[in-house]
Amino acid sequence: MAVGNDPLPELHPVPGIRLATVSAGIKKPGRRDLVLIEAAPGSHCAAVFTRNAFCAAPVVVAREHWRASDGQPRYLLTNTGNANAGTGEQGLADARACAGAVAKAAGTDIQSVLPFSTGVIGEPLPVDKITAVVPEALSALHEAGWADAASGIMTTDTRPKGASRRFHCTGREYTLTGIAKGAGMIRPNMATMLAYLATDMAVAPDLLQEALREAVDMSFNRITIDGDTSTNDACVLLATGAAGNGVVASRESPEFLALRDALAEVCVSLAQALVRDGEGASKFVTVQVNGGRDEQECLDVAFTIAHSPLVKTALFASDPNWGRLLAAIGRAGLADLDVNRVGVYLNDVLIAERGCRAASYTEEQGVAAMAPEDIAIRIELNRGEAGAGVWTSDFSYDYVRINAEYRS
Amino acid sequence: MAVGNDPLPELHPVPGIRLATVSAGIKKPGRRDLVLIEAAPGSHCAAVFTRNAFCAAPVVVAREHWRASDGQPRYLLTNTGNANAGTGEQGLADARACAGAVAKAAGTDIQSVLPFSTGVIGEPLPVDKITAVVPEALSALHEAGWADAASGIMTTDTRPKGASRRFHCTGREYTLTGIAKGAGMIRPNMATMLAYLATDMAVAPDLLQEALREAVDMSFNRITIDGDTSTNDACVLLATGAAGNGVVASRESPEFLALRDALAEVCVSLAQALVRDGEGASKFVTVQVNGGRDEQECLDVAFTIAHSPLVKTALFASDPNWGRLLAAIGRAGLADLDVNRVGVYLNDVLIAERGCRAASYTEEQGVAAMAPEDIAIRIELNRGEAGAGVWTSDFSYDYVRINAEYRS
Repeated sequence: MAVGNDPLPELHPVPGIRLATVSAGIKKPGRRDLVLIEAAPGSHCAAVFTRNAFCAAPVVVAREHWRASDGQPRYLLTNTGNANAGTGEQGLADARACAGAVAKAAGTDIQSVLPFSTGVIGEPLPVDKITAVVPEALSALHEAGWADAASGIMTTDTRPKGASRRFHCTGREYTLTGIAKGAGMIRPNMATMLAYLATDMAVAPDLLQEALREAVDMSFNRITIDGDTSTNDACVLLATGAAGNGVVASRESPEFLALRDALAEVCVSLAQALVRDGEGASKFVTVQVNGGRDEQECLDVAFTIAHSPLVKTALFASDPNWGRLLAAIGRAGLADLDVNRVGVYLNDVLIAERGCRAASYTEEQGVAAMAPEDIAIRIELNRGEAGAGVWTSDFSYDYVRINAEYRS
Repeated sequence: MAVGNDPLPELHPVPGIRLATVSAGIKKPGRRDLVLIEAAPGSHCAAVFTRNAFCAAPVVVAREHWRASDGQPRYLLTNTGNANAGTGEQGLADARACAGAVAKAAGTDIQSVLPFSTGVIGEPLPVDKITAVVPEALSALHEAGWADAASGIMTTDTRPKGASRRFHCTGREYTLTGIAKGAGMIRPNMATMLAYLATDMAVAPDLLQEALREAVDMSFNRITIDGDTSTNDACVLLATGAAGNGVVASRESPEFLALRDALAEVCVSLAQALVRDGEGASKFVTVQVNGGRDEQECLDVAFTIAHSPLVKTALFASDPNWGRLLAAIGRAGLADLDVNRVGVYLNDVLIAERGCRAASYTEEQGVAAMAPEDIAIRIELNRGEAGAGVWTSDFSYDYVRINAEYRS
């Protein structure tokens, strides 16, 4: 189940980036389950990794290599079908072996290769299957490989996810393209969100990292399917400089501002696509909280609502259950919350205020507001100027089914 | 659905306490939906109320009267079928009207009556129906009314819950009896946990409050069905002094220590009964975390596991999914967690250690451990001496069904 039926948009090639998607037969024979991304020499790479203390072996190795290469890796290697998580010391050796195979075949050092894995956990990585197809992957690299790669990194995703922007700045054209997979839990074990972004703009490393961190904070960090955080999450942004601009080194430069805008658009688009394809999702829900004293308390309220199983089952039932929303707001931990000032809206219909059902509200309005697949919950705290929103999905029978199935 | 088939145990009368359960016809004609509890003059009352900012009208009024009566209310009035929550100013007036009717009929002041409500929210309280049967309730008060009251306060509970202890201390016999309802969400809107406890020991008010707070912290505050907190929760402990002991005024007195033990037993028993009767529950799960630096970090890990929909759906499926447990531990926010020291046990079977599946572990062991209705998850952090446990249930199809049903 997934919300809507969004086709993959056109993904513009990014000069300096080549991709290959081949079949290593990791889990299913013939499935194109291995993606190699190459960045031209001199490219810079920003990266954000999972904060889960039990991070998977490839995350440990990718972070290690990313630092050792001074943020200038040349290759990103991704396999699906096996997360190489919960695999202990052997997992680390396996991740290094895969990276090493790419380095050897490409004639570069091992630190230039970042490994990523997604799929089942607790099973040993089939290193031989992966290393066997590395030469094939290297020879298949091409600039137009984004759409294939978007499919290649999928696990239980029902459709590939990508977003792309071309933008102009001071007479030059730039491209930003990204692909992503996952969110919600990936059967049979846990979520893995992987996102790969690239631009041909030349950007100083610290600014690139700052831009990525900011974009992730307002996109991937504002979605939740079930509150669980994966052991394998990673988001990477490559900047090749192939556009030929002088290296962007100022936060105030028009190029940096344009890149920030494009990054925000692409990351939000990818993040929303992840939620729409969340396991068992039948609704796409925006929870916007306004009028808070600061952004954090708005996020606290928004996430409390978005994580509430009571709210999520009501959303599944298209039930405009304002009582569950009030209860979630009330336990979000806000100091001195004056409940009499709180307004609750469903798709712009005021449903509750002053701690009870709004006088103007009718059940018909509520039912109409809950009918669409896309639902907007808006909370007005009326105690400040800050606002923040998150995106989530509902809890359905399918959610339980998908996640309760015995591992096969 | 509920776990096990525990009958209501014998509930010993508490000298100084009388109870009546009558029918006000609030939601269903003939249903005995009104419970009145009377405490003899001179009784003291300790109380703990919900921390939800959107607390219901009766909670506001009960807290107000409890303070105004200097912790010596004479009557606790509970109606089911209507929570008088999300009812604004009218709700407060209605709660006061009910309390006032008891006060007038009993010849006492309004502050001596604490009102409690549980049931549907957002509907006006049928005050007339309640006040009409107050005289009948007063004349029906009797000491042996505990079991009827345990049924009278039920809403979607599938069975009444009570616990009772007789204990001796320095030559005197004391009784402690308690009843409770709710936990998980109460259809159609939200959870309400109500618990009423009474003893015939004479205890100084501050010690009584301290004992209740401590018992609640280790029982009702350590259970979770879905992480949602109700707007109507309350737990009350009456001490009548009818046993004739001198007022207990020292934390070191044998009487106080005996009361603490009995309170802990009764509250834990009631709390576990609430979980076993949780909406859609098919498993009763103990999550025990040992070897933490302090109790709080043990609770953080335990609640992260207990709230994880991934873990809960795996429990429903009887799937010994150690990967989901590791992922939950890893995102509990512990500083400097050395994942290589963490051990994960299912019913004393070591299933994961050093970040991966234990070498000694077999799937057969895991399946056997998950088969019973009662499951113990034990996490050994191996970084300190503290420990703490919580109790929870699984996420089932029934959970979604019950909470996704359209309101009728």
